[in-house]
Amino acid sequence: MARVVVDVMLKPEILDPQGQAVLHALGRLGFDGVSAVRQGKRFEIEVDGPADADLAARAEQMAATLLANLVIEDFTVRVEG
Amino acid sequence: MARVVVDVMLKPEILDPQGQAVLHALGRLGFDGVSAVRQGKRFEIEVDGPADADLAARAEQMAATLLANLVIEDFTVRVEG
Amino acid sequence: MARVVVDVMLKPEILDPQGQAVLHALGRLGFDGVSAVRQGKRFEIEVDGPADADLAARAEQMAATLLANLVIEDFTVRVEG
Amino acid sequence: MARVVVDVMLKPEILDPQGQAVLHALGRLGFDGVSAVRQGKRFEIEVDGPADADLAARAEQMAATLLANLVIEDFTVRVEG
Repeated sequence: MARVVVDVMLKPEILDPQGQAVLHALGRLGFDGVSAVRQGKRFEIEVDGPADADLAARAEQMAATLLANLVIEDFTVRVEG
Repeated sequence: MARVVVDVMLKPEILDPQGQAVLHALGRLGFDGVSAVRQGKRFEIEVDGPADADLAARAEQMAATLLANLVIEDFTVRVEG
Repeated sequence: MARVVVDVMLKPEILDPQGQAVLHALGRLGFDGVSAVRQGKRFEIEVDGPADADLAARAEQMAATLLANLVIEDFTVRVEG
Repeated sequence: MARVVVDVMLKPEILDPQGQAVLHALGRLGFDGVSAVRQGKRFEIEVDGPADADLAARAEQMAATLLANLVIEDFTVRVEG
């Protein structure tokens, strides 16, 4: 049994209103010194079989095909044994 | 300048319809062997100052106060220098 | 061709951190008089066939099965011709 | 007391991976005839005062300033008395 974690974030040049709202809210609540917040998505995927190069390749495909919109989002994939 | 990453996931006992949709969709697209998917939120927060214990404590507070609903969600906090 | 709109909101008694963040941010930005914000999900679904009672029943099922977690969320369904 | 509802959807030309996942999942679950799904955000905002033209104007500003990224998202605003 292996585990794939995919993090999907808006590209840096794309404005992130959700992150902006959190940034303002943190200021309002007295958390000082916060200069930027970005909010993204995290997928935790349980997969049968070993955490090997084949799984890493399939995980990249899952992310690029279904989890992220590559025009506006970046993703990172991590495979854990 | 330090960076705080907060991951927020629904608690394991809380049904996650978004994750379920991704699970079914992966099957439909031919990705076999996927047994579970959970979808959560990821916050990347830039903060002035050092990545020290004080920041770690404040980051915990941010997460518990504003980013997660502790009744239905768990969170993890990571501070990077 | 018919259109189904499903709105999914956290139940009123469930704390909504995203809505809270927007509430604080609106205050910070000078929008006064806002007393509460809730953030939910909206699904717009295009379906072949007529906007009839059968579709309304199937739309209810879609929402209850896949789109909402009924333990923590409420939903409303609207069918448009 | 008035209520503002803001719906935020990705623009039609922007790929929506979340909506795609729901589309595939509905097929997998046996819901036939669904040709497209888009997933967006819905904000329900309680505001002091009357549901008048001034509130409508402020609600437009809230949406354009904080709730939507106009490069990739469209929004609609509705004010209820």
